[in-house]
Amino acid sequence: MVTAVIVAAGSSKRMGGEVDKLFLEVQGMPVIGHTWKTFDEHQLVGEIVVVVREDAQAAFEQLALNLPLHKPYRFIHGGDERQDSVRNGIRAACEESQIIAIHDGARPCVDQETITNTIRAAEEEGASVAASKIVDSVKLSDGHGRIIQNIDRTHLWSVQTPQVFKADVIGEAMKAVADEGIFVTDDTSACELIGQSVVLIESKNSNPKVTTESDLAFVSFLLQQ
Amino acid sequence: MVTAVIVAAGSSKRMGGEVDKLFLEVQGMPVIGHTWKTFDEHQLVGEIVVVVREDAQAAFEQLALNLPLHKPYRFIHGGDERQDSVRNGIRAACEESQIIAIHDGARPCVDQETITNTIRAAEEEGASVAASKIVDSVKLSDGHGRIIQNIDRTHLWSVQTPQVFKADVIGEAMKAVADEGIFVTDDTSACELIGQSVVLIESKNSNPKVTTESDLAFVSFLLQQ
Repeated sequence: MVTAVIVAAGSSKRMGGEVDKLFLEVQGMPVIGHTWKTFDEHQLVGEIVVVVREDAQAAFEQLALNLPLHKPYRFIHGGDERQDSVRNGIRAACEESQIIAIHDGARPCVDQETITNTIRAAEEEGASVAASKIVDSVKLSDGHGRIIQNIDRTHLWSVQTPQVFKADVIGEAMKAVADEGIFVTDDTSACELIGQSVVLIESKNSNPKVTTESDLAFVSFLLQQ
Repeated sequence: MVTAVIVAAGSSKRMGGEVDKLFLEVQGMPVIGHTWKTFDEHQLVGEIVVVVREDAQAAFEQLALNLPLHKPYRFIHGGDERQDSVRNGIRAACEESQIIAIHDGARPCVDQETITNTIRAAEEEGASVAASKIVDSVKLSDGHGRIIQNIDRTHLWSVQTPQVFKADVIGEAMKAVADEGIFVTDDTSACELIGQSVVLIESKNSNPKVTTESDLAFVSFLLQQ
């Protein structure tokens, strides 16, 4: 059994907090609607945990009524940091769940094949993540707009979500993060702490995160493809 | 006076060599036509050097007849590696040219403002490059599909073109590359050799390189914007 944990508890600071970016309409549905629907339709996903801000839950409940959903879902409240929200989401998964697929609510363009491939890799090896090779040259800046070093990009990948784990692996990794009191920008970083290797699964299609309203045109284009 | 050097001498190995990717049609014009037209229309650009493969020059000549060009241009033949093509292009710039803007022919979506900003920065500080902050988490792979290390992305940028230089700066940098017999993936790397700092100019819009036919839909979308 696979539980999808959709992280939708961001504060949207970058969009001024006025409109939650997840509820911006694109291709006839809010961003988060596309994300949710994609996981709901995936044949390997058995249930969905949606991590939301407490003050936004009513909007999500309303949304759920308007989506053609088939899988059981529940809401859980997020924490201060993304890792707190993820931890809350994982705890809410049903006990029989062996695989946890964590996904950013703001990545509505993820495709079924990438979800499948990340789940299969996590089943076999414990942890996986959707990723893309970095194709342009990479430079380290001095923090003031000047290049200080060329970075060899040969083995560099950018990672997105889903980030998929065996339930015991991510449980142990998140516990290590909490015990050590550190901050991680993504869930695979937590695996480093416990010596768990993570398989890179090349995304079949662009899988950007909506961070500003200007991203919507591109996302709309991708959803049409 | 600014010379734009458009590098259009790639071998297109990744597209099977059958159709030169630069001549794929998008929004009613070959990819390279959009690139050329954009530099031709830029108010600060005085002349254009197009670096081509010898066996493709006739196709470029034919293209030029069909474009609404206003600036003088000339063709020069490329070399074995990109850096050889760039060097040939720089040598072909007119002697009065103080600024050289090097651009990949396969980046047709570059906008006028980014070109202006890179030229202004190079005039002031000697060297600049169009760039984007890396927004997703970055991982180092072991070369066999597994993550071995998280890379702090705080100061990482991916760089595109234009890469713009004072003529004497890029001349000296390319000479250093040749003298040391090294290989550089982009022209700003050559500046490292001579201690010339390079200003990162954030691209106003997406500025991808067409490397496979599957990139065309996205490029078409961007050109429409």
